[in-house]
Amino acid sequence: MAETIFAKIIRKEIPADIVFENETVLAFKDINPQAPVHVLIIPKITEIESAKDLSTEKHSKLLGELFNAANEIAKKLGVFESGFRLVINSGKDSGQEVPHLHIHLLGGRKLTWPPG
Amino acid sequence: MAETIFAKIIRKEIPADIVFENETVLAFKDINPQAPVHVLIIPKITEIESAKDLSTEKHSKLLGELFNAANEIAKKLGVFESGFRLVINSGKDSGQEVPHLHIHLLGGRKLTWPPG
Repeated sequence: MAETIFAKIIRKEIPADIVFENETVLAFKDINPQAPVHVLIIPKITEIESAKDLSTEKHSKLLGELFNAANEIAKKLGVFESGFRLVINSGKDSGQEVPHLHIHLLGGRKLTWPPG
Repeated sequence: MAETIFAKIIRKEIPADIVFENETVLAFKDINPQAPVHVLIIPKITEIESAKDLSTEKHSKLLGELFNAANEIAKKLGVFESGFRLVINSGKDSGQEVPHLHIHLLGGRKLTWPPG
């Protein structure tokens, strides 16, 4: 498993603007934000490279925790009521850059369609 | 709870191009596709209006099943290896149109950034 920048952020070896953290989930502001609110929500375990690797048996609880974190973050950053978009890229055509599962949370402006 | 078009699709009262179905999840092609592959993945239960309503305790298993369905559909429609994007809209700013939780799965072309 290649080391990613997210693993270094989880270990606090490189700085990030962290907006949420618990035992299993970490979230921080995207360094290249595409909306007034743009956060990356990631599991602290490093073995899930993308949504492709998710299995119902192994990862349901983690998915629940990631989505719960998304709602907590949306509340904290003031977009829970105004609306937000969650985006998960998987593989080359999606533009996924870091091979560590992450959910983009975007809000704070009218989001357009198509979603990329 | 207002009746949505998705409830009618689940009950097969109106037609849809269904690509996946099991006990808990239904998926069908978006009638206004934004990519060569554009599918909506929904839970068959109707009480979850958006991601805002998801809770770790109640919905982790369902989330696992939705993401497992996404992977099955990506394989079936030939985008599992080439890549795909999952998008979940919640609330007004996101452009969510139907108040029944749904995951957009898009693939079959290079997806751009920002995601809307």
